[in-house]
Amino acid sequence: MAKTLGKESTCSIARSLEAVGDTWTLLIIREAMLTGATRFQEFREALGVAPNILSKRLEKIVEDGLMERRTYREPGSRPRDEYVLTESGRALTLVIGALADWGRVYRPRQDGTSPCFAGEKTGGIARLGFVTADGDFAQPAELVAQRTPDAQLTTP
Amino acid sequence: MAKTLGKESTCSIARSLEAVGDTWTLLIIREAMLTGATRFQEFREALGVAPNILSKRLEKIVEDGLMERRTYREPGSRPRDEYVLTESGRALTLVIGALADWGRVYRPRQDGTSPCFAGEKTGGIARLGFVTADGDFAQPAELVAQRTPDAQLTTP
Repeated sequence: MAKTLGKESTCSIARSLEAVGDTWTLLIIREAMLTGATRFQEFREALGVAPNILSKRLEKIVEDGLMERRTYREPGSRPRDEYVLTESGRALTLVIGALADWGRVYRPRQDGTSPCFAGEKTGGIARLGFVTADGDFAQPAELVAQRTPDAQLTTP
Repeated sequence: MAKTLGKESTCSIARSLEAVGDTWTLLIIREAMLTGATRFQEFREALGVAPNILSKRLEKIVEDGLMERRTYREPGSRPRDEYVLTESGRALTLVIGALADWGRVYRPRQDGTSPCFAGEKTGGIARLGFVTADGDFAQPAELVAQRTPDAQLTTP
């Protein structure tokens, strides 16, 4: 039987989940993306997460290369760590956006909020979805999935 | 402090994670999407997951409305349950696709595989990404996220 969990899996989804198959991890990444939070205290206050859990998650996030640990020092204080998204951490935008879109539609709330992604230079809103060769958005129900060797796939 | 976890959160990402912030749950959904698996034994064999864990996850998946439990009976056997993706379960295509794309790029493996999503009628490959108003794909690094009231957002 093929190994189905973790780093050694041939399935790219399982390998991703090894890094981000955890609610707190994704909420920490979300917070960094949406509010620019970088400091332990900022994450703790925004998420209401217990310090020991936050420590462990940040440790694993750094190990997994999603954030980089840097040192900062404010006048009169001892040096402290801050946590900055790396390229691979920022690339989770797609995962965060997909989770937001699903929650917005299937777990609606009148006072709900979601991230809205806009071009850094243009300010224009970007929409997330599956796009056909014709440039049209396809609904999930119109798609079938097939397991394909990664060598045959490319990223937009 | 706002409730940041689970069903009551105002954040759509947190509400999604209440249903799918779990590795086994997402691997079960993946298996159903990619191979059409519906039966306990099929999930158990494909994922190598312990029966008690699989039972609990399927229970929660049904409670959360991602799959529907149906009864089937093979000649000479007692009735058994099978699990079929609902509309909201199928709509996780975006989340599954985003996880696959991230894993393919940031956890590459020579023998890696990912789902490839194609139009059910057309057979044409659909690509997942953020699309600007001009119809171009935008890279995550070119985007900034901003928390926005859901009432102002629409789905493609």
